[in-house]
Amino acid sequence: MTVAGEMLASYPKDLGGVDAAMLQRSIEACYECAQACTACADACLSEDSVAQLTTYIRGNLDCADVCSTTGRVLSRHTGYDANLTRAMLEACVVACRTCADACGQHTEMDHCRVCADVCRRCQSACEELLTSLS
Amino acid sequence: MTVAGEMLASYPKDLGGVDAAMLQRSIEACYECAQACTACADACLSEDSVAQLTTYIRGNLDCADVCSTTGRVLSRHTGYDANLTRAMLEACVVACRTCADACGQHTEMDHCRVCADVCRRCQSACEELLTSLS
Amino acid sequence: MTVAGEMLASYPKDLGGVDAAMLQRSIEACYECAQACTACADACLSEDSVAQLTTYIRGNLDCADVCSTTGRVLSRHTGYDANLTRAMLEACVVACRTCADACGQHTEMDHCRVCADVCRRCQSACEELLTSLS
Amino acid sequence: MTVAGEMLASYPKDLGGVDAAMLQRSIEACYECAQACTACADACLSEDSVAQLTTYIRGNLDCADVCSTTGRVLSRHTGYDANLTRAMLEACVVACRTCADACGQHTEMDHCRVCADVCRRCQSACEELLTSLS
Repeated sequence: MTVAGEMLASYPKDLGGVDAAMLQRSIEACYECAQACTACADACLSEDSVAQLTTYIRGNLDCADVCSTTGRVLSRHTGYDANLTRAMLEACVVACRTCADACGQHTEMDHCRVCADVCRRCQSACEELLTSLS
Repeated sequence: MTVAGEMLASYPKDLGGVDAAMLQRSIEACYECAQACTACADACLSEDSVAQLTTYIRGNLDCADVCSTTGRVLSRHTGYDANLTRAMLEACVVACRTCADACGQHTEMDHCRVCADVCRRCQSACEELLTSLS
Repeated sequence: MTVAGEMLASYPKDLGGVDAAMLQRSIEACYECAQACTACADACLSEDSVAQLTTYIRGNLDCADVCSTTGRVLSRHTGYDANLTRAMLEACVVACRTCADACGQHTEMDHCRVCADVCRRCQSACEELLTSLS
Repeated sequence: MTVAGEMLASYPKDLGGVDAAMLQRSIEACYECAQACTACADACLSEDSVAQLTTYIRGNLDCADVCSTTGRVLSRHTGYDANLTRAMLEACVVACRTCADACGQHTEMDHCRVCADVCRRCQSACEELLTSLS
């Protein structure tokens, strides 16, 4: 079992009806995406073509921050607040989609290809969780 | 002029039609609220009645994280993305309202009284900016 | 290969003599530990004995923040600054050791047992990387 | 009184011998510096000369993250841990000094001039607090 899975399984109270497997996938996708976007922004900074990549770098930085916060909100279950969970998942879907679309135009750079895939996976995991909550 | 105001005024390109004064108020409110919520969560942890405050502590932690990320997204103007700005402002409004409502029930504790006021100011600044963007 | 490994392998310039395998282990440990500590703070908040756990909760919150920032600093290679890398790794070792020692006293709670293990792994990975840098 | 000052004054327990005025200055400097560095990284991204600024952008991003985490650690007083406080203040001094030195070479750009000043103030506040702790 992964660490996120073990932490979910050891939460001492009830998870409030949220699907634990779906929640775990979203948490793991958010942390993975936060790392990939931080690294992709940095890799773009080191490309000779950096002047053409500034919009994508900004998208990466936003996506890293939004995924970090979404991953933290989803890792907390005490006093669960469906409204905030939903609002952060919606912001995360927007950030991941924007970043995946941008990086997806530059798959000749391996870091953008990997980052676009990770963003799509995170977007899907958050969309699936959102649907299950409503 | 404040530092956030000087940074906005020195941005080398156009701000894309966003009202600079309104943007500055939201940025400053987000950073102020992130600090107050971090401190309020910690102050609640040190109250003898901590066992009755766990839901509020969680709300404070979420609000600190959401305001931090919103403050960062609003501090970036390169490749401005109205969709993400709007989604984060909406999440920030939810986090601040929830936290203000919770802390507002405990104004006998000074840290909750101050924190509730700061959350309300941040909520208003974000709502005003949201309205101006749509 | 993991995402962090793929991102490292696709960095377009040189990593500046840092051991890539060791760096990858530290990056992954930092993100894993940031998640586990966020979840453990929340799980502690939901324990009936929360009033006895406040010092540990604070240690968890600090460790989550320090590991997040260390994971970000380690994920960047452009304009590598050995002094900052070293200073953050040292702070991360302190945060992980403190948190592991605290959670290690409460292994009857599964979340603390898992979290202590994750903190020890992150501490070791950061110590090993630190040694290789000096 | 500022919000950070009001939050400090309303902390329900003892601050453990830390100088409250000095602590407040460091907390406020960290949050201000985190904002300025986030904005300066973004302003650099929008400069026509961005290809010459990549090392500084990376320094700004690191400094924003390190100041954010230092600001959070300093905002918590429950279960005060002098070792972690010291280690984070040392990392923050390194990050601010590096960033101030880099931005200080580009004071023809207003955002770098402002950012260098803010970084120096944050460095000084953290150094002063560090000295008072040892």
